[in-house]
Amino acid sequence: MLYIGVDLGGTNIAAGLVDEEGHILHKCSVPTGVERGAEAVIADMAALCQRIIDETGNKASDIKAIGVGVPGICHPSNGVVEFCTNLFWHQVPLREIMNRTLDIPVYIGNDATVAGLAESVAGVSKGVANSVFLTLGTGVGGGIVVDHKVYSGTHGIGSELGHMVIVADGEPCTCGNHGCWERYTSATAMIRMGREAAAKYPDSAILTACGGNLDKLTAKMVMDAAKAGDSAGVEVFKKYVHYLAVGIVSIINILDPEVIAIGGGVSAAGEFLRDAVRAEVDTMIFCKEVPYARIEIAVLGNDAGIIGAAMLGK
Amino acid sequence: MLYIGVDLGGTNIAAGLVDEEGHILHKCSVPTGVERGAEAVIADMAALCQRIIDETGNKASDIKAIGVGVPGICHPSNGVVEFCTNLFWHQVPLREIMNRTLDIPVYIGNDATVAGLAESVAGVSKGVANSVFLTLGTGVGGGIVVDHKVYSGTHGIGSELGHMVIVADGEPCTCGNHGCWERYTSATAMIRMGREAAAKYPDSAILTACGGNLDKLTAKMVMDAAKAGDSAGVEVFKKYVHYLAVGIVSIINILDPEVIAIGGGVSAAGEFLRDAVRAEVDTMIFCKEVPYARIEIAVLGNDAGIIGAAMLGK
Repeated sequence: MLYIGVDLGGTNIAAGLVDEEGHILHKCSVPTGVERGAEAVIADMAALCQRIIDETGNKASDIKAIGVGVPGICHPSNGVVEFCTNLFWHQVPLREIMNRTLDIPVYIGNDATVAGLAESVAGVSKGVANSVFLTLGTGVGGGIVVDHKVYSGTHGIGSELGHMVIVADGEPCTCGNHGCWERYTSATAMIRMGREAAAKYPDSAILTACGGNLDKLTAKMVMDAAKAGDSAGVEVFKKYVHYLAVGIVSIINILDPEVIAIGGGVSAAGEFLRDAVRAEVDTMIFCKEVPYARIEIAVLGNDAGIIGAAMLGK
Repeated sequence: MLYIGVDLGGTNIAAGLVDEEGHILHKCSVPTGVERGAEAVIADMAALCQRIIDETGNKASDIKAIGVGVPGICHPSNGVVEFCTNLFWHQVPLREIMNRTLDIPVYIGNDATVAGLAESVAGVSKGVANSVFLTLGTGVGGGIVVDHKVYSGTHGIGSELGHMVIVADGEPCTCGNHGCWERYTSATAMIRMGREAAAKYPDSAILTACGGNLDKLTAKMVMDAAKAGDSAGVEVFKKYVHYLAVGIVSIINILDPEVIAIGGGVSAAGEFLRDAVRAEVDTMIFCKEVPYARIEIAVLGNDAGIIGAAMLGK
């Protein structure tokens, strides 16, 4: 059977035809045009799915299911997007609107959740029953796969790993709480820590990398400074890895998955990040005599959104 | 069908005959005698199961399965107890030893995990697919039920909710890490905070309750002082409830269960504790517009160990 996966982003909608094994056979995209409102965006998503069916010489009946990865909170059972900050959506019946023009079953899921499913079907967690996916970007997202299936909880609000509290009464978070993991381990957090370190070390490579303008600082610049052995860069990197490991150890103690896959922009640091995180987790693990999760860098990159969304209907 | 559940504790071994619905039909117990070593203790467990079969006029073939709840880390698939601090056990093949004398399938699980299963079969989480159980005692244990089944992870080290880190680099924990939830929310933690508060408020009801000897302070004395409106008691209770809520919010953001059941010694405070925790969780919840887990006091008390162990084989 064939599937269509739709990756709904704030800038573009990407969609692809995907086979049973999670291979993308054909893909295309259109701008999201958020300002037009949910109905128009969803109509475009349906049209994009129809275009994929037409361009690949298929019929609607060849497609077992369409899956949509949404950057927000979804209710998987009724196909309603509860809310989605970046798109200004609130209680949008996505499935119902898509089914007005397309007679194909529609499934929805959070974008980080579907990326985790993609890694478990066709990526670094392939073949593994229980895995966790982290996306380290502007925020920190999470995906939980239990027994080869997406786990997003009873009300669709689970696997928000970025909002696990690691510092009670710590940094204020956009969610209204304090001390959430993403305040310490997102790319945004690395930039914040980079700025603090640059102020402390005025001759730091961090300051050079952004041309002296800390408003232009990126997480990659901080990571590159760490790789080059710059004192400020190394200090930030160690702190970042420590906080990342603190949360990963909690995930191990709660979920004990077989694989923890790290994706998102920060994961571009690859083995440099992975090896440091593995070493730090090792120092904090509870059951030192029992094997625990392999920590890996995710491999599917941007395609994970399309593949995972498609696999929701499998 | 009938089941036998065995609750292996540091002081006593309790066992019971249990029906499909989780009702205990007959129970008995013997002292554990930890100092005799694992083989002797397990032989006594097997003899206790045989005694239950005989006393109730059954045959071994009437018993579908025996389940054992163990105060340690278990590997459910091979029936080996990985380790168990209080019993000084290390890699004990419990299933194999029991099966030397009893020809009945044997299942094992962590004691907090089986108590959670008991609450989900016959207690406060009855009929609910996804639930989490917390036991607030000397330490903090956890049980996770996903889709009506125990979830203890890939290597049997999951659901150790007491070792979720809520204060990075906080109080040192017996597990070797820092800032684990149980350092702030166990009965032990409440006693520690009670002692600190008593030192600050020399006329506190806490000091009166323990007759001026803080070595005799119990969590119940602190809780009773809070209930009576004593300043020191109220201060400790508020702090305790805050830390408990911080971890519960993380559990909601990760696992989004339908029910979170609070058991263990501290839960004897009942509605006084439950209502305070509910109010504090409310202030920290991420998705305020979406329903989230009901927070309840567990109802099965000490019987949860027998019932849940029995239900492992269902």
